[in-house]
Amino acid sequence: MIDKILIEKLFSNDRRAIARIISLIESDNALTSEYLNEIHSKVGKAYRIGITGPPGAGKSTITNQLTKYYRKENKKVGIIAVDPTSPFTGGALLGDRVRMTDIGMDEGVFIRSMATRGSLGGLSKKAIDAADVLDAAGFEVIILETVGVGQSELDIAQAADTTIVVLVPESGDSVQAMKAGLMEIADFFVLNKSDRPGSQHAYTALQTILMIKDHDESTWMPKIIKTIASENKGIDEMAEEIERHNNFMKEQNLFLSKREKQAKVRIKEIVEHKLKDELWSETGENSLNLTLEKVILGNFSPYHIAEEIIEDFKNRI
Amino acid sequence: MIDKILIEKLFSNDRRAIARIISLIESDNALTSEYLNEIHSKVGKAYRIGITGPPGAGKSTITNQLTKYYRKENKKVGIIAVDPTSPFTGGALLGDRVRMTDIGMDEGVFIRSMATRGSLGGLSKKAIDAADVLDAAGFEVIILETVGVGQSELDIAQAADTTIVVLVPESGDSVQAMKAGLMEIADFFVLNKSDRPGSQHAYTALQTILMIKDHDESTWMPKIIKTIASENKGIDEMAEEIERHNNFMKEQNLFLSKREKQAKVRIKEIVEHKLKDELWSETGENSLNLTLEKVILGNFSPYHIAEEIIEDFKNRI
Repeated sequence: MIDKILIEKLFSNDRRAIARIISLIESDNALTSEYLNEIHSKVGKAYRIGITGPPGAGKSTITNQLTKYYRKENKKVGIIAVDPTSPFTGGALLGDRVRMTDIGMDEGVFIRSMATRGSLGGLSKKAIDAADVLDAAGFEVIILETVGVGQSELDIAQAADTTIVVLVPESGDSVQAMKAGLMEIADFFVLNKSDRPGSQHAYTALQTILMIKDHDESTWMPKIIKTIASENKGIDEMAEEIERHNNFMKEQNLFLSKREKQAKVRIKEIVEHKLKDELWSETGENSLNLTLEKVILGNFSPYHIAEEIIEDFKNRI
Repeated sequence: MIDKILIEKLFSNDRRAIARIISLIESDNALTSEYLNEIHSKVGKAYRIGITGPPGAGKSTITNQLTKYYRKENKKVGIIAVDPTSPFTGGALLGDRVRMTDIGMDEGVFIRSMATRGSLGGLSKKAIDAADVLDAAGFEVIILETVGVGQSELDIAQAADTTIVVLVPESGDSVQAMKAGLMEIADFFVLNKSDRPGSQHAYTALQTILMIKDHDESTWMPKIIKTIASENKGIDEMAEEIERHNNFMKEQNLFLSKREKQAKVRIKEIVEHKLKDELWSETGENSLNLTLEKVILGNFSPYHIAEEIIEDFKNRI
């Protein structure tokens, strides 16, 4: 049964209650959906910002500076940082260190890093659920920061009101980003470390690609903002562009269709996650284990066995 | 209906037939499972080598050199290279260039790069299906090369007879790899670019961690092989270590339990992939679309809607 007192504490921005409920989500606790149903009426007030880009682009420094910007306006900021590559790039670790010395002690900021390797799956579902928890807890700005290396990370960045793609001048990222379909998800681009060599070239390349896209007054045209996040340069412009995007979306009545698209992705993931749970319940896991010898010794195709398991599952439910 | 002539051509190592069938798999063609059932009796002769590690560790150079080693022994080599980070790291592109100038023209080598971003999902399922196709086509060695950044890539590397984790001296990869659970999947480690500064330190650090693990005569003890792949140094030692691992597994009768574990992962993925297909068939997709307005305007929780869709699905099947 869910703990009503815990939920009351969450609604009053109690840090331990927030951490507790996010941990339940992360561990795939059976009560997750009940908690999220329970808090749902309080969800929807926060402005959500998605930040994505390649490893090393400076996403955590940008998140850090943007957080300080909103703190000056006295807004409470919640951060969900997801980095599945962290064991190799050191990303999450380094990012946490930057944050801890800087905004980590601020009572108006809540930071949650989500490590993912070897987790139980459902990464984007969990990150978005956690954002709902921060929303219900009264954070006014929620930043979803992810490395742009997989569909699941892009799904997270897209589950925001404004999605920002951060690039750096090196390595031809701008062109690669276009190929990778990041063009479709960016509400605007940030060219960070823009004091580095090749910055103007990268800017022009990106600009050229953006110009090709058709646009008129009723469609949003993604801009490129230059920043040097480590020196806090360009952060005000970023915040202004977020505001401009927010206003545009409201004026053109575009949030409804955006929210519908987001809801669709999210509901799909919840459904798949739940069905997997039922599929590989003890019964399902056991009947799979029984077939394994047959596959190896009897030389049955895994596709044959899969058909049998699906039939089994259909009869079960 | 499946094309029997295409399958006959595949069995006689016809390059176009191989490419055709792998493309069907990649595009989630409805006949995929029939093709894989049909070829299954010819699958199982190849020796499969999984190579994984962080971006920039030199995996494609190693794959390249190892391929040349086996070509000298006159073995046919098939390569499946998967790099979901490629739009950013340039990995797959660069890797392909290395390969194309070197082994790409060799009739005894077949290379397939699998790009994954924005694909229809089921990455590890597809890569392993493709390995089956190469196996049935008569390749004697199959190399599965993947970037070690997510569970799905690790699943691919583990779907091999021998799994190799490639690291470089920089960036404390060795220790990070341990945290990331790569310790569990490596049959041995390759410390590439071992002429670089910090190499001895990285070697010792890795060695120390490996020593902590309990082992006796009946368990395999992962070694560390130093290489400079770009100068073809250490590749013979790698190939010998693969052979030694193969012999050990055979002597200790360990392949059966390894194959069972692999079959389990694979069957699970096939089942989940098929169920998703049925779930989001036209009917499923339509009933989801109808709920979206309810979620947004009626303020229903996505978890509520997910429950409804699951009930619906259960009644449907």
